[in-house]
Amino acid sequence: MTTYLTRRLTGSLLLFAIGLAATPAHAGSELMGLLKVLRENGTITQEQYERLRLEAMGAQEPRVEEAQEQPVKYEAPKQEVEKKRPDEYTVETDGGIRVKRNDGAFEFELGGMVMADAAFYDSDATPMGDGTELRRARLAMKGRLFTDWGFSAEYDFAGNEANVKDTYLEYIGFDPFGIQLGHFKEPFSLEDQTSSRYITFMERALPVDAFAPGRKLGLGVFTSGGMWSAAGGVFGESVGDDTKDEGNEGWGAAARATLAPLHKKRKAVHLGGSFEFRQPDDENEVQFKTRPESHVTNVELVDTGRISDVDHTLKYGLEAASVLGPFSLQGEYIRTDVERDRGERDLSFDGWYAYGSWVMTGESRPYSVRDGDFKRIKPKRKLGAWELGLRYSSIDLEDEDVTGGKQDNVTLGLNWYVNPNVRFMANYIWADADPNEDGDKDEPQVFQVRGQLDF
Amino acid sequence: MTTYLTRRLTGSLLLFAIGLAATPAHAGSELMGLLKVLRENGTITQEQYERLRLEAMGAQEPRVEEAQEQPVKYEAPKQEVEKKRPDEYTVETDGGIRVKRNDGAFEFELGGMVMADAAFYDSDATPMGDGTELRRARLAMKGRLFTDWGFSAEYDFAGNEANVKDTYLEYIGFDPFGIQLGHFKEPFSLEDQTSSRYITFMERALPVDAFAPGRKLGLGVFTSGGMWSAAGGVFGESVGDDTKDEGNEGWGAAARATLAPLHKKRKAVHLGGSFEFRQPDDENEVQFKTRPESHVTNVELVDTGRISDVDHTLKYGLEAASVLGPFSLQGEYIRTDVERDRGERDLSFDGWYAYGSWVMTGESRPYSVRDGDFKRIKPKRKLGAWELGLRYSSIDLEDEDVTGGKQDNVTLGLNWYVNPNVRFMANYIWADADPNEDGDKDEPQVFQVRGQLDF
Amino acid sequence: MTTYLTRRLTGSLLLFAIGLAATPAHAGSELMGLLKVLRENGTITQEQYERLRLEAMGAQEPRVEEAQEQPVKYEAPKQEVEKKRPDEYTVETDGGIRVKRNDGAFEFELGGMVMADAAFYDSDATPMGDGTELRRARLAMKGRLFTDWGFSAEYDFAGNEANVKDTYLEYIGFDPFGIQLGHFKEPFSLEDQTSSRYITFMERALPVDAFAPGRKLGLGVFTSGGMWSAAGGVFGESVGDDTKDEGNEGWGAAARATLAPLHKKRKAVHLGGSFEFRQPDDENEVQFKTRPESHVTNVELVDTGRISDVDHTLKYGLEAASVLGPFSLQGEYIRTDVERDRGERDLSFDGWYAYGSWVMTGESRPYSVRDGDFKRIKPKRKLGAWELGLRYSSIDLEDEDVTGGKQDNVTLGLNWYVNPNVRFMANYIWADADPNEDGDKDEPQVFQVRGQLDF
Repeated sequence: MTTYLTRRLTGSLLLFAIGLAATPAHAGSELMGLLKVLRENGTITQEQYERLRLEAMGAQEPRVEEAQEQPVKYEAPKQEVEKKRPDEYTVETDGGIRVKRNDGAFEFELGGMVMADAAFYDSDATPMGDGTELRRARLAMKGRLFTDWGFSAEYDFAGNEANVKDTYLEYIGFDPFGIQLGHFKEPFSLEDQTSSRYITFMERALPVDAFAPGRKLGLGVFTSGGMWSAAGGVFGESVGDDTKDEGNEGWGAAARATLAPLHKKRKAVHLGGSFEFRQPDDENEVQFKTRPESHVTNVELVDTGRISDVDHTLKYGLEAASVLGPFSLQGEYIRTDVERDRGERDLSFDGWYAYGSWVMTGESRPYSVRDGDFKRIKPKRKLGAWELGLRYSSIDLEDEDVTGGKQDNVTLGLNWYVNPNVRFMANYIWADADPNEDGDKDEPQVFQVRGQLDF
Repeated sequence: MTTYLTRRLTGSLLLFAIGLAATPAHAGSELMGLLKVLRENGTITQEQYERLRLEAMGAQEPRVEEAQEQPVKYEAPKQEVEKKRPDEYTVETDGGIRVKRNDGAFEFELGGMVMADAAFYDSDATPMGDGTELRRARLAMKGRLFTDWGFSAEYDFAGNEANVKDTYLEYIGFDPFGIQLGHFKEPFSLEDQTSSRYITFMERALPVDAFAPGRKLGLGVFTSGGMWSAAGGVFGESVGDDTKDEGNEGWGAAARATLAPLHKKRKAVHLGGSFEFRQPDDENEVQFKTRPESHVTNVELVDTGRISDVDHTLKYGLEAASVLGPFSLQGEYIRTDVERDRGERDLSFDGWYAYGSWVMTGESRPYSVRDGDFKRIKPKRKLGAWELGLRYSSIDLEDEDVTGGKQDNVTLGLNWYVNPNVRFMANYIWADADPNEDGDKDEPQVFQVRGQLDF
Repeated sequence: MTTYLTRRLTGSLLLFAIGLAATPAHAGSELMGLLKVLRENGTITQEQYERLRLEAMGAQEPRVEEAQEQPVKYEAPKQEVEKKRPDEYTVETDGGIRVKRNDGAFEFELGGMVMADAAFYDSDATPMGDGTELRRARLAMKGRLFTDWGFSAEYDFAGNEANVKDTYLEYIGFDPFGIQLGHFKEPFSLEDQTSSRYITFMERALPVDAFAPGRKLGLGVFTSGGMWSAAGGVFGESVGDDTKDEGNEGWGAAARATLAPLHKKRKAVHLGGSFEFRQPDDENEVQFKTRPESHVTNVELVDTGRISDVDHTLKYGLEAASVLGPFSLQGEYIRTDVERDRGERDLSFDGWYAYGSWVMTGESRPYSVRDGDFKRIKPKRKLGAWELGLRYSSIDLEDEDVTGGKQDNVTLGLNWYVNPNVRFMANYIWADADPNEDGDKDEPQVFQVRGQLDF
């Protein structure tokens, strides 16, 4: 009788036991489903998921770990992005604005830059005009479309003029080749390829300013490997040139190749060469001139004037640079041959520059193998990065009957990189121009400063 | 005694049973609350919600939840919309950037376009100048404010000039009427109304380029019905015109009406007419001229020169178009009457064009009843859409004492729509101008290509 | 024996009891972890968290309250923002676009404005030219970087020209001091400092237009206290001025101080003074002139012409304004002394204006102590805000041998503030100029209207 009772009881208890056993497991499984969904939707990070899963499984300790896990979450924003749905968008600003589809197929960036200069001149012969200048005031839109297509639309409004800068469409589907169509820089000269936001001195060196072809309308191909880059293209004229002319436009072809046998994070050796062939428009004229590495003035101490009966020009550039921790050296030689017809004598002009830079706060000039140029110095310290630079540049615009003059400049530069977007620059220039346009020797000194912000 | 024991035990067991019964229900209900919240916040989708809800319910019958289900069923339709909070914003990029408040009351779009051209000319008499051109380089901001107000601010910087394009404010509260105030196209001519991004050939036809008034500062009203559209407005002059003049500005009034008796997805018939009255500024002069459907050159083979003593001009346009699957036909006739005073003879000029287009890959030219014009061809295949077009256009700028010349063009066009944002175009033009400005007959041939990207 | 049985049973039951007791607590704790995470991620709001936490802890009633709580959630969007992770971004549009990092360290804004005018003139002597004008067409980018740095890049394209407006970099780390470097308005004159989007009449008063220095390239410092503001700076010339000149640029120094002894929400008293010293460029010339408070015409009825042999100019401005609910008064007196050399006589010109405004719908002109100027009137009613204004302005450009003329204007203005972004204006002007440039007395009347939208 008691046996019967016992059996009955035990039976019921077993039933309950089963029921019980089910419960906690069940509670866990409900959560598991939700956690999975939230992770898929990118609502919670992988870490958060793991931790919560442990809890859901019934472990006790995780509650304690919770506190420690918090920081982890902040240290892994990447994770969170990857969890986001590929057809959704991520927006951010580090000055401008960037919108990106999480699968990377579409991307849009809006930014720009402001450079405000002031310059003071102490010249013997030619008045140069102390003053201020809004050196650059740009708006830049860049983007990617359907994974393989890209574009850039960049405009400059400094001086109350609209000037088209990098404005092109791009195809990057033939990796590692990129094809650009539109208005962009001919591949020529290290310092010309380096963005004005990153160059070491306020203005590019005399020969670069005088000879580098700069931006033209054309078609270009770009590629690069582990330690080299190559670019080439055919180009018409610059936007705004030749617009009213009914004769044929000039055209050219340019190519540049760079090699970086050494390219560690803080160590780099760069070698490069570039070449341009150019036929002038139907007026068959060319002119070479340059400001004294200062842009507030409009004076060009050396100037060949219009050279007539030109069949074509050939430009050669050699470049070398090296980075060793905070120190860097850079130099270029550029030569321009002018082939003339109608029995006029051929001409040859050239120039070179060399400079050394020391980032006193220890940062390095970052080298890009892909572009074969230098990028932005990002300060490590709260007080920013400080850089000291010394440049010697020389140009000779005299040959045969053309007396464009010779000039040598020594520039001492100090740069303060406040943060990745803001830089202040001060340059002191000793120029030696002989003869200048009017044939008088002139040895102006220039002190100029710049405030620069790009976003 | 044992009875007593048994009763006691059974009692306790019942208590436990109740406790047990409660537990799973409880575990489920906690989750239910969270799931609802996550669904409301749009963190999980309705499907995810349903699946998880079932899990959370476990084997239990959804008695208590019944009550809360009501709102769910109520929310079920338009789930997508309701999930996003109306006072939050959605951002995306399909090239440019679009930000939208989820309730649609506010919207902002930033985009633009780049068109890079090259052209080669083979002319007998007038040199036309082979070369390249950045045909368009635009920045466009569009938006909506407080549901009923809108704006557009579009600028073009090609050729290193700033040119104001569609820049106006708009009121769309009087549905189906839209009112625009500012700088936009006078409603005249099908091809002129169609965006340059969508026109079939690189340049608009001779008579459209010569006669269509284009953008002016004014006030316009737009409306449309199931198969028709109508627009009208009064306009001053174009931005930049007459800025230095102290005399009265010119002004005009224009209207356009379109009818689409058939407008299926791949079938459409379009008929339309437009009209403009315009009084020139105090100088009482007008001029009509056009480039040879090629814009790299600045040569205008036909040109009336300045016509003096003009009281007003009257323009009439007739248009027809039809789409049948991949095939489409389009044509316009435009006539311009010049009413003069001081006893000068009245003048009348006119022109027309007609073309056929075949999208070889099968896509159709999309027709918009609302605007009475054509929109973007979107490729269906991975290799894009390919379109072949043939156009004949003719203009006569000769009447009475005015000998502006006559010109007929035949254009063969090939378009490659790579994706919805990128298009490449090639046009070959046989032009027959007689007499041109200098009175010599000229039969230039033009080959021109374009790379186009809009974002 | 039964004792043994009982003990055995009780033991098993206790075990089960423990197991049971554990279950609900466990179910709660699992959820707790998830809820915390979701709140941290900003997925659920604080309210939602609290409610769900209660449930998870085992409370029963909340389920019923749930339905009622839903609406509350929508009424507290702020909450949700605060929950967002500081390293994530918030995007919104109220016309333009604003992207902000939640910790406020980075912010970017893109906006602009469109103003379309039409004007009709009834003049006796000088023809002024009825017509239309796109008065302003702007693109503005503003932002903040690394908490303490800011920038503005604003361009105007009206009239198919690119014009640089507020384009500078800014440091705001020395609270309450702000430092600006670049192109911005010299601190001078209340009406000149007040944005054109907010001024009461379509154009600024005669003396402000003629004498206020406006935007120049320079370095400025701004600060303010509880009831005052102060600003000062040194400036070169305006962007676009003097670009081709090889002589020295002109330069100046300006300062402005304002005091607001009373500045409640709908009550304010403003007093201020400003001063500018300026040395012209090497041509030593200055000129003062102004349009008749209407910009569609280019006629300047009063004009000193070029004044030579100028050593420097001194400008003084006194300003006062007060707001009393919907009523406001504002006035300024500006005097300009021209110090000349080469024995030329010194000159002194001056002018003043005063106006009253009544916002008939009851809104107040909002005063900013920080900037010492007035901001946007935001309508409270669905039909917008309506404002009536009456201004008297006077300028005297005659002194010694300079006969630039005298002019007095009375302007009646009506403004309709449709919403915070859209405003329509109508001005009727009675001008009395004697003598005008040609020496003839002229009393033109002007009727002009404007549609304005800023985004």
